Amino acid sequence: MSQKNVMVAQSGGPTVAINASLAGVIQGVQSSSSYGTVYGAVNGILGILNDEFLNLSSLMEENPAFMERLITTPAMFLGSCRHKLPDYLDDDSSYVFIFSQFEKYNIDAFFYIGGNDSMDTVLKLSEYGKKIGSNIRIIGIPKTIDNDLCMTDHTPGFGSAAKYIASSLLEIAHDTFIYAVKSVTIVEIMGRDAGWLTAASALARNGYSTAPHLIYLPEVPFDTEDFLLDVKRALFERDNVIIAVSEGIRDVNGNYISATESAADTFGHSQLSGAGRTLEFLIKEKLGIKVRSVEINVLQRSAAHLASKTDLEESVELGKKAVALSEEGVTASMVTVNRISNAPYKISYEYAEIKNIANEAKSVPREWINDAGNDVTQEMIDYLTPLIQGESNVTYENGLPVYMDITHLAKQKR
Amino acid sequence: MSQKNVMVAQSGGPTVAINASLAGVIQGVQSSSSYGTVYGAVNGILGILNDEFLNLSSLMEENPAFMERLITTPAMFLGSCRHKLPDYLDDDSSYVFIFSQFEKYNIDAFFYIGGNDSMDTVLKLSEYGKKIGSNIRIIGIPKTIDNDLCMTDHTPGFGSAAKYIASSLLEIAHDTFIYAVKSVTIVEIMGRDAGWLTAASALARNGYSTAPHLIYLPEVPFDTEDFLLDVKRALFERDNVIIAVSEGIRDVNGNYISATESAADTFGHSQLSGAGRTLEFLIKEKLGIKVRSVEINVLQRSAAHLASKTDLEESVELGKKAVALSEEGVTASMVTVNRISNAPYKISYEYAEIKNIANEAKSVPREWINDAGNDVTQEMIDYLTPLIQGESNVTYENGLPVYMDITHLAKQKR
Repeated sequence: MSQKNVMVAQSGGPTVAINASLAGVIQGVQSSSSYGTVYGAVNGILGILNDEFLNLSSLMEENPAFMERLITTPAMFLGSCRHKLPDYLDDDSSYVFIFSQFEKYNIDAFFYIGGNDSMDTVLKLSEYGKKIGSNIRIIGIPKTIDNDLCMTDHTPGFGSAAKYIASSLLEIAHDTFIYAVKSVTIVEIMGRDAGWLTAASALARNGYSTAPHLIYLPEVPFDTEDFLLDVKRALFERDNVIIAVSEGIRDVNGNYISATESAADTFGHSQLSGAGRTLEFLIKEKLGIKVRSVEINVLQRSAAHLASKTDLEESVELGKKAVALSEEGVTASMVTVNRISNAPYKISYEYAEIKNIANEAKSVPREWINDAGNDVTQEMIDYLTPLIQGESNVTYENGLPVYMDITHLAKQKR
Repeated sequence: MSQKNVMVAQSGGPTVAINASLAGVIQGVQSSSSYGTVYGAVNGILGILNDEFLNLSSLMEENPAFMERLITTPAMFLGSCRHKLPDYLDDDSSYVFIFSQFEKYNIDAFFYIGGNDSMDTVLKLSEYGKKIGSNIRIIGIPKTIDNDLCMTDHTPGFGSAAKYIASSLLEIAHDTFIYAVKSVTIVEIMGRDAGWLTAASALARNGYSTAPHLIYLPEVPFDTEDFLLDVKRALFERDNVIIAVSEGIRDVNGNYISATESAADTFGHSQLSGAGRTLEFLIKEKLGIKVRSVEINVLQRSAAHLASKTDLEESVELGKKAVALSEEGVTASMVTVNRISNAPYKISYEYAEIKNIANEAKSVPREWINDAGNDVTQEMIDYLTPLIQGESNVTYENGLPVYMDITHLAKQKR
């Protein structure tokens, strides 16, 4: 019988930990007696459909430094996609082709590293595989800065994003504190439906700075009048008020707190402005005070120079765990982190059925938000703190962080 | 004769290197035989007017760890101000009081760490001092992320901001490169009148990434039609085009490229949007392509965790140099960096008369920008490269960078 191989792909939005899980899969196969080659599909599931693969085992052999650099490189080494498979009951042609590809490359296990949409793909492939009586294991490896996957204590990529947000919030507080003039600074943080990342701003608090002074998550309906009262009260107590707000805050009717702006210049164009900028407008209008909004932009998911060591290490372990599970015959599942205790921080790596994960989202529990809906509780802090511990081992050359070339797949120059 | 003392203050916008120069002044006095105590005026020149001082020499004695932590702490330890002294010919009351304060504290030298506005204060105090026949030395120590002070090769704070911008640009490139879909990303960078910081984005280029693919500085009039042609051409060559643009770009008539947005929601409010967002509107409107704008916000001047070691070391040296010069009797001057060579990078610390610096601004020379006005030349790269070398020695505790408490001066809680 010929050697069995495995296939891996990456999908969805970037994180700084998604290559660590890829490295974990490669490591798992390297130390496995069951598996031979790791094929990487290019641009997620599209790589299988387009017959575009990298032989990751060969790449690893050719370049021994590959592994360490891969772990600390932000965004997908294999490229990404946002491709939703159709229901196989409507159209099974993609499925037929994908499983013929698995056969062609003698694939025993397929690992898909991604977030909610990617877990939908894992579910669909698992169901189709079961229907046709395939033995190929289909296992998801979680990845999302949003931390909104069910059945796992937290998700790879979240801890690093949380560390970046907390550190940046502290540095923004320094930037703000130097003037003896009343001011409000609004920091808008990613997370359309779940407030985990915005909650992480609370980790910025230390012995001298209590910023952010107000925190608004999408899990609690946002009331403009309550907000203005909160800000006035905070301004009474201190000169410089710093507010962390999720991009996804909504009013009681579920409408996003955002304003449609029309550019009144020659371009004449309407544009949806984010929550932070909308609240900046509001405070300027209603309170007439110095106000600034800062959008913690895509860097919260790609600033690998400030990754959490804990996050990277766990991401590698989850990749290895996925390989070990597939050897045990587990399929139709996602690897998970199970937290045993906060202090000391103890976890175990487990798995859960994909049907309980795909197309579900984990919100912040209401009891981890204070009654007024403008801060988080100590339970949230205790949950978050272990996830940002330790610094990544990024090397610098010529003044800049050194990452792996993720443009190698590009058909055009970068 | 009683011991002579010195006074120091910080002013203007934050940088991550301004406390390194403060540390340099303290070190210079510690190793001086002429000077006794270093008084720090609180909130710039306002501290002298309000009689608010810290005895920095005592603080240093009480806490030996003070010095090292001070050097890596972002934003002003002594607080800041934006206070312009009146012309003493119109109203000399502030001047009379300031010089009486100097006498009261037995001050022999006053050091003001800041940017263009602060150097205006140094000039005015120098002129008034000369008029009244004062022997007190008045010396400026440069500080500005904008790098727009004359007579010095570069300014403290600039190298660290440049390092943050280049690193962030590289990480944004990673974030962008993963999708095989045409897109434009516009990164807006600080520098209202000078393009130095935006030029530093070019340092992000490495062996695999040529981003940013287009760079626009305020020194060249911005033409919308030329810009759209540039973008179309770049999109023809590659999938993901990344553009660095200064917040201060202006058209041929000197009007800022910005749009007045009116928020079309209940708040009904007009707002000037920045250059990046305005160009985002324009590309969406005219080219109909996926486009995003990212504002590299206040973190470019306060992200001390990514400071340039070269920048911090030079900032300390300039503080020490200022003390040494005052002992030699130099006054009405600013300490400067003189570049001897790029490779190997060699500099000397000098000084220049403040009258040639105050109220002047150093723009990017036209010949360091390419003919098309959409990139910088190799000379610019050679100039910038040495300034971002080396990493700062920030320590982390509990997952976050540890800085010094800069809120100690606050009358209200933070």
